[in-house]
Amino acid sequence: MAIDFIDDSAGLSDVPGFRVGAAGCDIRNKKLDRLDLTLIVADQPCNAAGVFTTNDVKAAPVRYSQNILLLSQGKIRGVVANSGNANACTSVQGDADAQLMAEISAQAVGAPTEAFLVCSTGRIGELLPMTKVAQGISTASKNLSNKATEGRRAAESILTSDTRPKTATASFVWQGKKVTVAGFAKGAGMIEPNMATMLAFVATDADVNAAYLKKSLLSATQQSFNCVSVDGDMSTNDTVILMASGVSKVVVDEKADVDLQKLFQLAVDKICFALAEKIVGDGEKITKVVSVEIQGARTREDAEKIARAIGNSLLVKSSWFGEDPNWGRLADAAGYARTGLDEAKLDIHYNDVPAVIKGVPIPENKPKWKEVVKARQFKVRINLNLGSAQFRLLASDLTDGYVNYNKSE
Amino acid sequence: MAIDFIDDSAGLSDVPGFRVGAAGCDIRNKKLDRLDLTLIVADQPCNAAGVFTTNDVKAAPVRYSQNILLLSQGKIRGVVANSGNANACTSVQGDADAQLMAEISAQAVGAPTEAFLVCSTGRIGELLPMTKVAQGISTASKNLSNKATEGRRAAESILTSDTRPKTATASFVWQGKKVTVAGFAKGAGMIEPNMATMLAFVATDADVNAAYLKKSLLSATQQSFNCVSVDGDMSTNDTVILMASGVSKVVVDEKADVDLQKLFQLAVDKICFALAEKIVGDGEKITKVVSVEIQGARTREDAEKIARAIGNSLLVKSSWFGEDPNWGRLADAAGYARTGLDEAKLDIHYNDVPAVIKGVPIPENKPKWKEVVKARQFKVRINLNLGSAQFRLLASDLTDGYVNYNKSE
Repeated sequence: MAIDFIDDSAGLSDVPGFRVGAAGCDIRNKKLDRLDLTLIVADQPCNAAGVFTTNDVKAAPVRYSQNILLLSQGKIRGVVANSGNANACTSVQGDADAQLMAEISAQAVGAPTEAFLVCSTGRIGELLPMTKVAQGISTASKNLSNKATEGRRAAESILTSDTRPKTATASFVWQGKKVTVAGFAKGAGMIEPNMATMLAFVATDADVNAAYLKKSLLSATQQSFNCVSVDGDMSTNDTVILMASGVSKVVVDEKADVDLQKLFQLAVDKICFALAEKIVGDGEKITKVVSVEIQGARTREDAEKIARAIGNSLLVKSSWFGEDPNWGRLADAAGYARTGLDEAKLDIHYNDVPAVIKGVPIPENKPKWKEVVKARQFKVRINLNLGSAQFRLLASDLTDGYVNYNKSE
Repeated sequence: MAIDFIDDSAGLSDVPGFRVGAAGCDIRNKKLDRLDLTLIVADQPCNAAGVFTTNDVKAAPVRYSQNILLLSQGKIRGVVANSGNANACTSVQGDADAQLMAEISAQAVGAPTEAFLVCSTGRIGELLPMTKVAQGISTASKNLSNKATEGRRAAESILTSDTRPKTATASFVWQGKKVTVAGFAKGAGMIEPNMATMLAFVATDADVNAAYLKKSLLSATQQSFNCVSVDGDMSTNDTVILMASGVSKVVVDEKADVDLQKLFQLAVDKICFALAEKIVGDGEKITKVVSVEIQGARTREDAEKIARAIGNSLLVKSSWFGEDPNWGRLADAAGYARTGLDEAKLDIHYNDVPAVIKGVPIPENKPKWKEVVKARQFKVRINLNLGSAQFRLLASDLTDGYVNYNKSE
């Protein structure tokens, strides 16, 4: 049951049956020499599943892609994605533009319009410069390739305020055949809950039907993209797509060997978690990645509420930035999640250093936990001692850099 | 129906039947020459009502005071309050210390222990320096007076990271008799929802029973302290107390003249709103006070959810700080409140300048709304056009100063 894992891989180019092509078409209108558009194309029609933002305000490409997946029952040829403009809050013209992006992309590879999904990320409330976008799609289609260099360019093209591309590849061997799962993603700001301002594209060469892909993706997303938080803001454009080319000839479905199903899910989980972790680690101007682990809750929902209250508390996040661990702020935030916790049962640890046991502070340990929080990554573990449910949230600190970065557009 | 209003008044000393006394007893252990304790004492037993934090983690003085109000059926002699230490997350010793504060205070004025309420604000998780506190209470009791100077000192003594005292006085004349309602408060950080890290003491010389006071206070709180947000953090210590000495001999109860009841409520509302406004305006290192007004919602709850999502969004708050109004971030935050809004019906205004009408952006107005947000105070008005319910939240921006201020304790 061994899975090979490559961090910072070539991303989708690692997956047989898919090609990618990137282009720079100045969507930001800033004359930067910057990649901002990418095509992902399957050699043959492939199966696909998607998970999308649950924001009431959904960007046009989100509405479009959700509809396409429904109509095509998950059979697509590819995806066109751009950065620099979210095509969100753009009214009916936005819908028309999303469809036009699909049309042009499909034409470029000789597929029907309804075979393309569309993703956008970037600024909200402005119309896409469609002439530039069309040019970008044309260039990207000429660049389509399965070379690692193009895979890396694709990963670069979807970035916004990210500082680096995010890719990962997992593979395993089943009865002599190699199966690959790989992906690339972008994140940076507005991360939480439920995949905010993030796009992720994951593909496999396993032969998997759309319904199974959906189930597998939902499960992986629950434990990865939905368990990270940078600023508590949820975007209009979040999208995770999982595609399967089938060219490995390894069929993964409900009737497949249980070990194979497990291996496949493990590989998808691993890729999604690796990408989610990279997203938090590259949050806008952050300096800390903190694993907020709530244990001993009555329900998973309670544990999640508390983890999010802590992970999104400005006071908690500011104190992480200052490396001045204030467990009182943790207890306060846990309390205002209002799950009915009992203060007298609360245990709080920084990594393995107890700060509070059964509601009683242990101030003599302060020098030890002050050491813990000097690391870039550490754990905050709270046991409610009320049950056995738990939730883990990967959160970041809040810095003056974040505020200054986001104070203008 | 005229109400006289004095801003930045002497606070509680304006109310016949009450005396206050402040003291500095170095609770912070920093050898600062700083007031940090206050006594509020009624000349005779008075009626009182309180509203407290709904945090699961309640500070010892909150639990203590809630209990006292219950046992005494709202008949008390006074309140002892300190800043610099919240006596929160202090386990059983904290409970004992809160009770001891009441005991010492009661003894100092010759009242029974159960006649005193206790309030604390400041650092969480450390035990109160009780020797100092006892000394402070002794000094404060000697300072008890109805002079304006002592009222101002009392207002100063409860401050934490506030930059200035917060007081207000309202009065009206009923059938030749003057009725006064006055108060003082502290706020600064951790403000929201439901009165976070804030203490407010309001008193009147009207003759009002405890049940009526409770009703009146709840109503005023809903429209004031519960409608402000600085950072979305809710504290363990929030308390608002309303006391009535009755010395004006004007009886306000359910059987009183309707006009008198209205006048009294208006005065209480005015004081609570004035204090709440001062709290937001003095939020930690803020530069903007923004009135987030959500209209046309199906229910008040929906409107409130959207107002809070906007008022607590790091991206929105950062953009206010930068005076770079990004209505896209407003729409995004409104959407993730997930009330089922319809983007195509959305109107967004900065003061009276439309930015979006029925979901369609009006970019040509951008220069105008860029002007609006240069002011220290402005309105963001969103009409959902789905119903007639509304909610108004007074919120602040998020600054690099806030982060740097809170990064260490």
